[in-house]
Amino acid sequence: MESAIDQHLKCPRSLSRRVADDYQPPYAAFVGRASPSVKQVVMGYFGVQSKGPELRERALNALRGLVRAFGSAADDPVHHDLVEYQDASGYDNLIAVAYWDAPEKYERWVNQPGLAGWWNSDDRLRDGIGYFREIMMPRVEQFETLYAFKERFPGVGAIASRLSGEIEEHGYWGSMRDRFPASQTDWMSAKGALAVGQGQPALGGRVVITGHDNVCLIRSGQDWEDTDGEERTLYLEQIEPTLRAGMDFLRDNGREVGCYSNRYVQFIDLDGKPVEKSFGLGHWRSLDQLERWAEAHPTHLRIFVTFMGVAAKLQKLRLYHEVSVFDGAAQRYEYINCHPGTGLMRDAA
Amino acid sequence: MESAIDQHLKCPRSLSRRVADDYQPPYAAFVGRASPSVKQVVMGYFGVQSKGPELRERALNALRGLVRAFGSAADDPVHHDLVEYQDASGYDNLIAVAYWDAPEKYERWVNQPGLAGWWNSDDRLRDGIGYFREIMMPRVEQFETLYAFKERFPGVGAIASRLSGEIEEHGYWGSMRDRFPASQTDWMSAKGALAVGQGQPALGGRVVITGHDNVCLIRSGQDWEDTDGEERTLYLEQIEPTLRAGMDFLRDNGREVGCYSNRYVQFIDLDGKPVEKSFGLGHWRSLDQLERWAEAHPTHLRIFVTFMGVAAKLQKLRLYHEVSVFDGAAQRYEYINCHPGTGLMRDAA
Repeated sequence: MESAIDQHLKCPRSLSRRVADDYQPPYAAFVGRASPSVKQVVMGYFGVQSKGPELRERALNALRGLVRAFGSAADDPVHHDLVEYQDASGYDNLIAVAYWDAPEKYERWVNQPGLAGWWNSDDRLRDGIGYFREIMMPRVEQFETLYAFKERFPGVGAIASRLSGEIEEHGYWGSMRDRFPASQTDWMSAKGALAVGQGQPALGGRVVITGHDNVCLIRSGQDWEDTDGEERTLYLEQIEPTLRAGMDFLRDNGREVGCYSNRYVQFIDLDGKPVEKSFGLGHWRSLDQLERWAEAHPTHLRIFVTFMGVAAKLQKLRLYHEVSVFDGAAQRYEYINCHPGTGLMRDAA
Repeated sequence: MESAIDQHLKCPRSLSRRVADDYQPPYAAFVGRASPSVKQVVMGYFGVQSKGPELRERALNALRGLVRAFGSAADDPVHHDLVEYQDASGYDNLIAVAYWDAPEKYERWVNQPGLAGWWNSDDRLRDGIGYFREIMMPRVEQFETLYAFKERFPGVGAIASRLSGEIEEHGYWGSMRDRFPASQTDWMSAKGALAVGQGQPALGGRVVITGHDNVCLIRSGQDWEDTDGEERTLYLEQIEPTLRAGMDFLRDNGREVGCYSNRYVQFIDLDGKPVEKSFGLGHWRSLDQLERWAEAHPTHLRIFVTFMGVAAKLQKLRLYHEVSVFDGAAQRYEYINCHPGTGLMRDAA
């Protein structure tokens, strides 16, 4: 057993963990360890938004263009995923999710003339589809992971890919916070507000939303590709419907609990065909509002109870999450031709 | 808004609260404040155990004798309650619950010659019924209360009877711990084990069980005497069955989660007739094991979700709890002629 906080990220505490040193978690879990040379990572969500089947091929082509751009240069992302999400307004959102292990690599990548020229061109306003880029750059003190498995780590696990031993900080409310290196000295409280930095969401066109300190992002995933038999039935008939209800609640009622945006996304391939993996992607005003929802709201408690009841039985189902908080300046939310309820636009003042 | 920890009990922290200073609870709650002159209180559970209707009158007479003893001297308890509980072995347990505001008063009371003589007499072994005394003496740093109402505080509220303002530390997992003054500097972890100090539980007769540091006691109560209409239906048809299921789980499966004894007791009058008040009375190996059950077990989460869903609507239903931890030497568990599954005997080595 070891702390989720890696040795080189430990520091004298001004805030204590929630549990005593003799705490024993109820089952085994692991975290990803990044190389000590990694100081800050980039999580990029590159979206293509369209509505209706007649625009699907155009949207998929745009997605394929993004994927080509991921393989174009020395500063390509370490890893990327392709997912799809139909939002509350009925728009299809194809998203390429990419991770870099240093902000300067992302900057060089995104500022390649071809790519920057494409993004900035007025042609984008006339494509008949929308685009967005939601870019978050947590320092290594500002994110945590949790895996119920030991190999092929998804998401930021492409960067934090070394396996920990069994970790201590899981299985209790507050363990998510306790896994953040920053939690040793920092409450990670929200400061400031989302704001419209450029454009007008209601008018479409180009909009930039500025974040605030400690906006929190959770990617909470499930991969049932390898499951079969009873475990597959368990996932599809018990876990998934419960999870979906919670995700639907946050999509439709997130604002009242501090959730700026929640997308329950399904993996796809380059042809847009579904792959048996999904994740919930939630932007929150703060980690503590995510905590309050998770530990007190019936829709999440049902997910939790279902999971706790089956956790020890899971063999092939891969469940994980990664949670991050961001400095205000380490977030960029840009939208082109997207409807005003898209992403961080909805709740920006 | 103010801290649940009274001013005179605050001290420099070595352990932090779970939530930041800007935490806002979802509804109002209050705690009882004791006079600063109170340093340690006594919680006494005086039981009479019998089985079958033919012994009921004898048991009730013994209970009445106890109540007379509560009104006999200068050092009488500040308050007492009468409750009844049928245990898992089918025995009826009538219990007089009494509170003193200082251990020395209790000592003088319990050592009155008439009372001590009665308890120590060999006649008690031939009464055909059983008796027990479970006496716990928490220092004021070692207990906390929580009330969803502002007057007529039950239980230890007879001693901690001044009302706080709206308190900060409630509505999140860990708030129970954060309301303990001791939590500022002490994890309140269990040390040692329950032991048989005298006698042999399996043989009946006189048995003494010795406690260990930080045995934890929760009295979690509900008073529906004043309810009517929709609120009464809500309590009887939604809250109570959920609560009973949780209490039954702990009665029958407590050992596996660290609960030494759990009694879901019903108030009675001196004739043994039911009164519309009840509480769950649980002895736990430690506060953290109570926390783990409360925050992760389906039976308690159902109680919690039910309560959270209706908390804002409650007008006349009175819900409260008091939770304490005890030094090893501040507990005395004595049994006469009780079956070996009674109280703290069941799990003592």
